[in-house]
Amino acid sequence: MVYIEDLKNHVGKKVELKGWVYNSRSSGKIKFLLLRDGTGIAQCIFFKGACEEKSFEQFAELTQETSVKVVGTVKEEPRSPGGFEIGAESFEIYGPSVEYPIGPKEHGVDFLMSHRHLWLRSKRQTAILRVRAEIMAAIQDFFDGRGFTRTDAPIFTPSACEGTSTLFETQYFDEKAYLSQSGQLYMEATAAALGKVYCFGPTFRAEKSKTRRHLIEFWMVEPEVAFNDLYDNMELAEQFVEYVVQRTLKNKAEELEVLERNTLALEKVIAPFPRLHYREAAEMIKKENPNFVIGDDFGGADETIVSSKFEKPLFVHHYPAAIKAFYMKEDPNEQGASLSCDLLATEGYGEIIGGGQREDNLDILTHKIDEHELNQDDFKWYTDLRRYGSFPHSGFGLGLERTVTWICGIQHVRETNPFPRLYGRSYP
Amino acid sequence: MVYIEDLKNHVGKKVELKGWVYNSRSSGKIKFLLLRDGTGIAQCIFFKGACEEKSFEQFAELTQETSVKVVGTVKEEPRSPGGFEIGAESFEIYGPSVEYPIGPKEHGVDFLMSHRHLWLRSKRQTAILRVRAEIMAAIQDFFDGRGFTRTDAPIFTPSACEGTSTLFETQYFDEKAYLSQSGQLYMEATAAALGKVYCFGPTFRAEKSKTRRHLIEFWMVEPEVAFNDLYDNMELAEQFVEYVVQRTLKNKAEELEVLERNTLALEKVIAPFPRLHYREAAEMIKKENPNFVIGDDFGGADETIVSSKFEKPLFVHHYPAAIKAFYMKEDPNEQGASLSCDLLATEGYGEIIGGGQREDNLDILTHKIDEHELNQDDFKWYTDLRRYGSFPHSGFGLGLERTVTWICGIQHVRETNPFPRLYGRSYP
Repeated sequence: MVYIEDLKNHVGKKVELKGWVYNSRSSGKIKFLLLRDGTGIAQCIFFKGACEEKSFEQFAELTQETSVKVVGTVKEEPRSPGGFEIGAESFEIYGPSVEYPIGPKEHGVDFLMSHRHLWLRSKRQTAILRVRAEIMAAIQDFFDGRGFTRTDAPIFTPSACEGTSTLFETQYFDEKAYLSQSGQLYMEATAAALGKVYCFGPTFRAEKSKTRRHLIEFWMVEPEVAFNDLYDNMELAEQFVEYVVQRTLKNKAEELEVLERNTLALEKVIAPFPRLHYREAAEMIKKENPNFVIGDDFGGADETIVSSKFEKPLFVHHYPAAIKAFYMKEDPNEQGASLSCDLLATEGYGEIIGGGQREDNLDILTHKIDEHELNQDDFKWYTDLRRYGSFPHSGFGLGLERTVTWICGIQHVRETNPFPRLYGRSYP
Repeated sequence: MVYIEDLKNHVGKKVELKGWVYNSRSSGKIKFLLLRDGTGIAQCIFFKGACEEKSFEQFAELTQETSVKVVGTVKEEPRSPGGFEIGAESFEIYGPSVEYPIGPKEHGVDFLMSHRHLWLRSKRQTAILRVRAEIMAAIQDFFDGRGFTRTDAPIFTPSACEGTSTLFETQYFDEKAYLSQSGQLYMEATAAALGKVYCFGPTFRAEKSKTRRHLIEFWMVEPEVAFNDLYDNMELAEQFVEYVVQRTLKNKAEELEVLERNTLALEKVIAPFPRLHYREAAEMIKKENPNFVIGDDFGGADETIVSSKFEKPLFVHHYPAAIKAFYMKEDPNEQGASLSCDLLATEGYGEIIGGGQREDNLDILTHKIDEHELNQDDFKWYTDLRRYGSFPHSGFGLGLERTVTWICGIQHVRETNPFPRLYGRSYP
């Protein structure tokens, strides 16, 4: 068996291809089969007389998504998809496909989402999945290549991290446990063991919102570095984002073309990125959105006001401590401002990174846990990190699916996960 | 700031190291500090008169795990750990560490597990975590390098896959959902889209057992290949295991030495691996364990009887269909036997891979779902894969933590996960 992507190595030879019918048409004495096998699409041509008689006669059985083995000879043909075509001899059907539900006609989103297991076979969806896989590999290679150790965080956690309102609770034998919203707190522990660490896995937010930017279950990569401050953290983040974007542009050019992505915008994603103090960003927003209250968090439209002024992703740092999580360190030189930084993507795609420097003072942290009405016992292990050799440290989280959405230049995050989980949807 | 692993590039130069006190001792006019920073351990020497007076006097403050910045000059010194030492000038404490709970004395397992966030800082634990990270990278590189596309499966699933008795149930807004036991069924869908696919993420089993081989939450990699049969599947699995083991031996030799792993046994892990039909294996077991009933699944001790006869990992294939999951294909040439294969590791470490060829006939599969008392509606999407272009396909799952246990040559799986989840334990 030969894969379609390898046809170039088999020119003039007889090969066996296995795949699914992408399309087929007849024109008198010649019949065309477009076969897809997951690595590409190949045109297989059945000439009456040149191919097996039975295959020619039964060609009509090759309905959309029928699985089939095709035997034929590889020819160079610049006009064919991929540059090659198959002079077919015969085919053999593995499994028929009667009335395949997804045709060339337009389908509603609900219908497609309910048929996600089949929708995935489309050209657009496979392109997105390939870009996603490339980004996942780039993430691992970037950190491994810089001496980070991957130390994945648990999903079952005894406590909340990003606020209790969006937690999934589950029975863990005789106790209660929660599904992880972030691995960060655990990375702070492993950073003390290994210096530079990251985790990369699924995280959960029980958000009852149906926006184009929210998934219930999404992957997040979270590096944490001992002795890094806020500014080291922004440097790491911008080098990371540059690497991921530029590598994907290089390795997945074909897929980005299928998605009709304007890659010019991505080519400009080169570090360093502009940096705005929250105050500067807030004033920018206030000018165009008079309802915005300085001190509040930005909405999606507010983020776009700021990011549309720049050709590169940009950092906003020093958000008010009051709107950030309990573990964020306050700037000792600027009361009320946290050593936090978010990265806003270009073209209105909004926040893809949130991070900053962590509170390393035991007394302040204990106080913050109380202030946020969290249970001190749940965080005993976390505060231990400040009891035994506390250290300045920073890190960030990058949401995988939002990043894929941005790099693919598509409208909705739901297409960037093979089986997205949304409010009201956990099937298939 | 310089990392200890990079000292070789700074010989003769003044550097700033940041880390934690691993050990310290005094001997009159000379004081020794062993500093660890996650990348290595360096000996820093404070000579009275040569170093800052204050640092010399306050040296006693450097208790175990105090976090500290040390300034000094790098010298080559073959007798020192790592081959270099620091002629120290001064230190500055970031955070004290009073009565660090984990000392050189022996601690009970429960105590260590409750202090996992600190226990991780030990030499043995960091070695295991580094081996784990290497294996994770090897897994991704192996599949990406062979044209697989990573298509991760969801954690929230509407249905059971490996039996309903070990499911974690959770409320998913107004519905019920279950935490994934395996991504396999989803990989069968993406295999039809992309040909060769894999997922790699956490999976869950609510097993009320405390054995040295079980975790409640563990990572699993699950490749699935369209048009692969049982034998292709074993070939893929043995090449994969060889790659992971040999690469880890090469890249993590130092860590395996810390763990006192006998690497000779691992050096023999070269494909092809021996293959035994279930019948042959069962007869072997019966000879040494007369209570074993042919037709039953193997217990841990039974696996060891078989695997101890071989120097390489070995496949057992064609297990009785009755003891395998509903999706396993029965061998059309051998009634009652499934096209399944498990891989047993060497040295009594037991099963690390389970896999096989999947049932691709719609009628048989529908019947099996009934037979296993599963809900047809939950599996509508899964049976669709047999309605629209069904195809022969195979795959397997390799448990990450068991593999790390085996490669590290350690006793218990609990040390191979940064924050292991066991029956009765979800903290820290």
